Amino acid sequence: MRSPQVQAARNGETPSPHHHHPHRFPNPPTFHSTVSLQKLRRFNSLIFAFRLISFSFSLASSVFMLTNSRASSSPRWYDFDAFRFVFAANAIVALYSLFEMVASVWEISRGATLFPEIVQVWFDFGHDQVFAYLLLSADSAGTALVRVLKGADTCTTSNAFCVQSDIAIALGFGGFLFLGFSSLLSGFRVVCFIINGSRFHL
Amino acid sequence: MRSPQVQAARNGETPSPHHHHPHRFPNPPTFHSTVSLQKLRRFNSLIFAFRLISFSFSLASSVFMLTNSRASSSPRWYDFDAFRFVFAANAIVALYSLFEMVASVWEISRGATLFPEIVQVWFDFGHDQVFAYLLLSADSAGTALVRVLKGADTCTTSNAFCVQSDIAIALGFGGFLFLGFSSLLSGFRVVCFIINGSRFHL
Repeated sequence: MRSPQVQAARNGETPSPHHHHPHRFPNPPTFHSTVSLQKLRRFNSLIFAFRLISFSFSLASSVFMLTNSRASSSPRWYDFDAFRFVFAANAIVALYSLFEMVASVWEISRGATLFPEIVQVWFDFGHDQVFAYLLLSADSAGTALVRVLKGADTCTTSNAFCVQSDIAIALGFGGFLFLGFSSLLSGFRVVCFIINGSRFHL
Repeated sequence: MRSPQVQAARNGETPSPHHHHPHRFPNPPTFHSTVSLQKLRRFNSLIFAFRLISFSFSLASSVFMLTNSRASSSPRWYDFDAFRFVFAANAIVALYSLFEMVASVWEISRGATLFPEIVQVWFDFGHDQVFAYLLLSADSAGTALVRVLKGADTCTTSNAFCVQSDIAIALGFGGFLFLGFSSLLSGFRVVCFIINGSRFHL
């Protein structure tokens, strides 16, 4: 197995100074072939689906938390730090997922990323990671608070409040799960970008 | 800027079938040069340092949590779910960090990984990620519980219990921080392994 750069050197030619950086190669002619375009579209559709599910879960979670204190006798959710944290984290993730869905649709329809490619792949991956940690942290704090409330008298006097908090937190965990999947895919895109100099994964 | 494979093709030679996979190249002769060995040693020492700090934080956190109920009048920490979770997560991370320190010392002293290289890089990265999520989740739950206890009467009657819980959780967050740094480095090693077929980062 001979590498092309060894062959080039044997032919007495000076190898390109960039031969250590395969990601600097201009796109080879087969790169935009139909097969790889199809694969890319399927990959982008998968990312879009994960974003959509994550958006739905987070939006539902924040709405459930926001509408938790309708009855005048029930405790108010915004009196609890952890519930405020759950609401804020889910709202942030919902907004972020909405933005990423727009970016994803833009990419599927126009074939180019919204930001420059290197910014886009790192932006996606970094925000996926940070927001996944944020959301998990909020949901764990909310879970701990709900367990304490169940031990105290709060849940016996106003059971609906606790049930709705449970649902909101469970939806938040669902959002975290699919944000984690998106994070795997966007991490894969970062690696592809580092290897190929392009987000295409072939 | 001509790529070497274009030059090879112009010379009438068949390019290697593996020219799309620069990570399949056999190691170039300069690979194990003194400079790259020095860099690798520095990189491994950095990983070892992060593991050591993470181990110290997690061990201290679990010990602080474990010794939290000495006074007979104070509440017992193992009656609280979230505190049990904090203790368990920190103990797991401490054991894992200890194992990874052994693996790191092995690698620095013998120049080879403990497991086969591909298993080792993915093992490190995967466990770093999962345990970082676990530890963050435990610490968030613990924080939420401590905030509730501060609102209730528990902390006024036995203040030492709350202070020691606070310290244990803060140490846990420290452990999470350095586990996250380790995760960045081991992710970097995974990418290097995918690109080069070796954990060396040159």
